[in-house]
Amino acid sequence: MSNAGKLIGVGVGPGDPDLLTLKAVRALTEADVIAFFAKTGNGSHARVIAARHLRAGVIELPLYYPVTTELPKCTAAYRDALAEFYAAAAAKIAAHLETGCRVVVLCEGDPLFYGSYMHLHARLAPRFATEIVAGVSGMSGCWSAAGMPMAQGDDVFSVLPATLPEKELARRLADADAAVVMKVGRHLPKLRRALAGSGRLHRALYVERGTMADAKIIPLTAKADDDAPYFAVVLVPGWEHRP
Amino acid sequence: MSNAGKLIGVGVGPGDPDLLTLKAVRALTEADVIAFFAKTGNGSHARVIAARHLRAGVIELPLYYPVTTELPKCTAAYRDALAEFYAAAAAKIAAHLETGCRVVVLCEGDPLFYGSYMHLHARLAPRFATEIVAGVSGMSGCWSAAGMPMAQGDDVFSVLPATLPEKELARRLADADAAVVMKVGRHLPKLRRALAGSGRLHRALYVERGTMADAKIIPLTAKADDDAPYFAVVLVPGWEHRP
Repeated sequence: MSNAGKLIGVGVGPGDPDLLTLKAVRALTEADVIAFFAKTGNGSHARVIAARHLRAGVIELPLYYPVTTELPKCTAAYRDALAEFYAAAAAKIAAHLETGCRVVVLCEGDPLFYGSYMHLHARLAPRFATEIVAGVSGMSGCWSAAGMPMAQGDDVFSVLPATLPEKELARRLADADAAVVMKVGRHLPKLRRALAGSGRLHRALYVERGTMADAKIIPLTAKADDDAPYFAVVLVPGWEHRP
Repeated sequence: MSNAGKLIGVGVGPGDPDLLTLKAVRALTEADVIAFFAKTGNGSHARVIAARHLRAGVIELPLYYPVTTELPKCTAAYRDALAEFYAAAAAKIAAHLETGCRVVVLCEGDPLFYGSYMHLHARLAPRFATEIVAGVSGMSGCWSAAGMPMAQGDDVFSVLPATLPEKELARRLADADAAVVMKVGRHLPKLRRALAGSGRLHRALYVERGTMADAKIIPLTAKADDDAPYFAVVLVPGWEHRP
């Protein structure tokens, strides 16, 4: 391993380029290769966040997700397509690591918290030196933009995917002092019913593009059940019993 | 409000000074007043993290917690002492804000996630302009130092205080895909039983001083039930079914 390179998962934070850490900036400027996930036809959001710190001449390695949106996520075909994609992406990175390169993988938010980087880490960490540069999470960017105290003292805090069945969502929302619900998208009407059913609707905030200049942060009660983007989140703040 | 100053809660991250964000550094260098919580006789950890970016001549405003360790936390006397302390601290900051100062409050980790800053924010945000600079959370610093992927896809993630009763801890640990248990301290034997009871002991990691140079990160099964510091955490990673 001694002559091999190093794999560095770098959290670039929730969107505002100024929420990069000093450590992330140094990792970017010292990288031989910058890898990032992207969708064909779209740019990489993580690369946009990091752009101003990329060294001229650095090797860029975009990793394009396979076009799998026509496959239901629960199918073996979808899982196989993604497993094959992550294996191929890891192999491309390994080829650079074997020549002694420092390979940075750009990660929106924090690398080890709901991010695609983990699929590379799990495959490469047994063979190569790795380092993680922690980042500001997307949800932290959202509640900070909202100025909303989230959890305090002995609060129980939960992160829940809006994909859960309504009853399950309502049960878990009632069972936590504070919660963030992710992947809201088309699940908004169901989520609203679950929040009402658990008595948590009145304090819930709806957040779109939390740390962008065009962020939309409103009480969920003021948001229509029409269209919500996949990455919208709902914040349910805790700390109800303030001193 | 137009001639008044601004209150800025600045997350300084989990401990490594390089995990300050660019935005935090700018807020520190532009501050008129730097406030921070501290215990009498101890320094402020947040101030140590931020130290190299403090402008010469900046006004420092240490906020010393009252000596309340002799009072049980559940007593009215304890609550009253803390409420009085936060009110007095907010009044000191308000005096600076009223003269037009930019007052930065240093916050370990993230300002709105289990931090004392919220007590000031709740009291001052109705009267003064505020801004939050999101920070890397302490728990993110811990799992990054451990190189431990925590949550993926539709995982349910929970933050639990080790102060919960054993049955309640075991129930909640079994009910989450991934969890971080905080404030471990003297609750370690109980927490171990709860993890065993919920079938989650084998993957749990024990972390002390997660992002310090002298961090201790070991499987919980290798940690004795002797002494654990109050701020030790236990990580229970999710993402069991990897592609």
